[in-house]
Amino acid sequence: MLESKSKEAALESVAGNGLLHRRIFIAQGTALLGAGGLGLLTPSLAAAQRLPNLAKVPGKSMSGYGNRSPYEAHIERNNILSYPGTTGSGGSWTPLESLEGIITPSALHFERHHSGVPDIKPEEHRLLIHGLVDRPLVFDLDALSRYPMVSRIQFIECSGNSRVGEGALPVQKTCGGLHGLLSCSEWSGVPLSILLDEAGVDPKARWLLAEGADSAAMTRSVPMAKAMDDALIALYQNGERLRPSNGYPMRLLLPGYEGNASIKWLRRIKVTSGPTMTRNETAEYTDTRPDGSSLLFTFEMEVKSVITAPSLGRSMRQPGLYEISGLAWSGAGRISKVEVSVDGGKSWGLAALADPVLSKSFTRFRAAWRWNGTPAVIMSRAFDESGAQQPSRKQLLEARGLKRNYHYNAIQSWKIAANGEVTNVHA
Amino acid sequence: MLESKSKEAALESVAGNGLLHRRIFIAQGTALLGAGGLGLLTPSLAAAQRLPNLAKVPGKSMSGYGNRSPYEAHIERNNILSYPGTTGSGGSWTPLESLEGIITPSALHFERHHSGVPDIKPEEHRLLIHGLVDRPLVFDLDALSRYPMVSRIQFIECSGNSRVGEGALPVQKTCGGLHGLLSCSEWSGVPLSILLDEAGVDPKARWLLAEGADSAAMTRSVPMAKAMDDALIALYQNGERLRPSNGYPMRLLLPGYEGNASIKWLRRIKVTSGPTMTRNETAEYTDTRPDGSSLLFTFEMEVKSVITAPSLGRSMRQPGLYEISGLAWSGAGRISKVEVSVDGGKSWGLAALADPVLSKSFTRFRAAWRWNGTPAVIMSRAFDESGAQQPSRKQLLEARGLKRNYHYNAIQSWKIAANGEVTNVHA
Repeated sequence: MLESKSKEAALESVAGNGLLHRRIFIAQGTALLGAGGLGLLTPSLAAAQRLPNLAKVPGKSMSGYGNRSPYEAHIERNNILSYPGTTGSGGSWTPLESLEGIITPSALHFERHHSGVPDIKPEEHRLLIHGLVDRPLVFDLDALSRYPMVSRIQFIECSGNSRVGEGALPVQKTCGGLHGLLSCSEWSGVPLSILLDEAGVDPKARWLLAEGADSAAMTRSVPMAKAMDDALIALYQNGERLRPSNGYPMRLLLPGYEGNASIKWLRRIKVTSGPTMTRNETAEYTDTRPDGSSLLFTFEMEVKSVITAPSLGRSMRQPGLYEISGLAWSGAGRISKVEVSVDGGKSWGLAALADPVLSKSFTRFRAAWRWNGTPAVIMSRAFDESGAQQPSRKQLLEARGLKRNYHYNAIQSWKIAANGEVTNVHA
Repeated sequence: MLESKSKEAALESVAGNGLLHRRIFIAQGTALLGAGGLGLLTPSLAAAQRLPNLAKVPGKSMSGYGNRSPYEAHIERNNILSYPGTTGSGGSWTPLESLEGIITPSALHFERHHSGVPDIKPEEHRLLIHGLVDRPLVFDLDALSRYPMVSRIQFIECSGNSRVGEGALPVQKTCGGLHGLLSCSEWSGVPLSILLDEAGVDPKARWLLAEGADSAAMTRSVPMAKAMDDALIALYQNGERLRPSNGYPMRLLLPGYEGNASIKWLRRIKVTSGPTMTRNETAEYTDTRPDGSSLLFTFEMEVKSVITAPSLGRSMRQPGLYEISGLAWSGAGRISKVEVSVDGGKSWGLAALADPVLSKSFTRFRAAWRWNGTPAVIMSRAFDESGAQQPSRKQLLEARGLKRNYHYNAIQSWKIAANGEVTNVHA
């Protein structure tokens, strides 16, 4: 393909090693890419002009509930893990490296169950609100469905997500294998504040206890302030009713909080004066400090980002122009900016943030990189509207030691070899 | 449950027959609903406090690609229709009345195929760009995946959607059965403008021809201005690769245009000086006027809204407070407001619009209604940022006659009987 010197020159470099200005992703700037800028090898023209054989036979008919292509069936949740001696205590990881945009398909939403997925008949399920209230209330699904609802696109991240990053040696897994206890859906449901108002909360109440109907009877304490702020009783996920693995027929959704607190298969909310100190907030889901003491109730997931492409398993094939694509999110609110480095952190350039940039949601970021075919280390760092910045691995480990095991939000780096292969490195 | 006179009084009426102020859907206003405002009958407290039997047995384990609850398997695309004598020419309708939020699950996205769904092997598929260009280009899926992408949440509506509304007698179908050739997804893909810039468009070119790889060889002409504005080569739908029924492995996406023009299984784009006048833009997808002449290339879908609940099949059960929920959309841009009437159009009140309100996307609207148990007719009307307003059925038919058969965007009304049953009426 021809090259246009003037257009090439307009592909302004904004940081070392070929990182380009994000204007490539702004509609009016696309002309900059013209005239063979991407330098791709293209297959034969003659072959592409022949009518495909497919076009000569009728296709399949319509269906009631559609399926994906059989050629995509290898895209699955991975790391599927059941702890020895348990039934269904374990997890499965979202294949982030195979997805685009900000919505995670419900069939690929990560799982973390403590005693498997219960088989709940919706007409038998009840939600009880009791404890320090003027009048205890019980709701069936039909009753809840009459209440005012809200819809929000928000992420859920397990507080143990990415914690293999603490290890001295970088683990060689895909982006989803490292960071895939993380998904983002459109959730629709009833604000918990409406139900609590109807029950009449005692002025002494400062917390509540939420309990699931699974056989782990998962229970967590939640601050009343969060319950009255943006907590939802979620009934729908990505348009349809919740999936069983996400709490069908109803779950608590605490936007921005560690996933474990958003109790699935929610059956009971007890309004209390203080936290209940359940097993899952004392023996687990606490953060051990270097001195051996533990932080309790560290709910909010910190600002973080990951590069989904290129990444391990999504190699580069030849020098040239590439899109770097990734996800950023923060439990504190909106992402304010994402910076990308393609020279191992020596210099950084702004990534483009794709609309819509929503609070406590995935934000898709994109950067353009002209790779010259020599080895390189790429990484991203996110900033949120609270002013927080994603730390380097070194900063994080120095600040909190190695015993914490939850809330690992350090920058992660991919190394591109000269042959285009991608590995995970501690840079 | 107790009643609180002061809180009741704060549920301000904004239009006749019990339509309430939309502040109920604004977080700070939820306290207004407190103290038994919804007046729901609740099941037994004692039963709800007993541990469910489910909680005594471990649940199912994790899975690679999840499924929905078997208790939701009755939610399917409906009206499934294959025209007599054809294989796979027909459609299936999204069950809008069973969904919440703005995302349509990909498995329930409506279908309208002209010769079924082809079985395309992704590694064999090519996109050819040729015609009035400096250099023809051919792309395979891997090559396309290196280009800068954008993601957008946008609706697709078949131009024939809702056209049963033209009939003299109102058809008794669900909301999805009437209006479900309509869905909304997050689409990710490569802006067509980038590929056209790379091919180098001849200054004489004003149109292009897009062709699908199905055996109908669906072809439509598209104005160059639209191609250079916001047209996408879509590769992903709701996070994962396109479903086969939505054009796997790639489709054209022309936001806001009638669905037929967003060619599925896209295999070829030919840059042309004028429209090609294909069968599907002359014999079909044209709008016949009262004088017998036809409008061609009426691409943009007009501003429109439907109430999804209550609706036929989603009856009311007793007098009291209800949420009215619905969808609004416009091919011209953002929805600016939606008004709801619960007295047959005599008076109207503003509905609450759920964030995010995006261009050429679904907008979920909600209104609160205290139904007094007497028969009522409810309806919604949408307005967009271009200043357009959804017309009444009478206005629409007077303006354009009965022969048009496409682009039917009139207000549709539901009648609530005293027993709570809902029917479709021409009001």
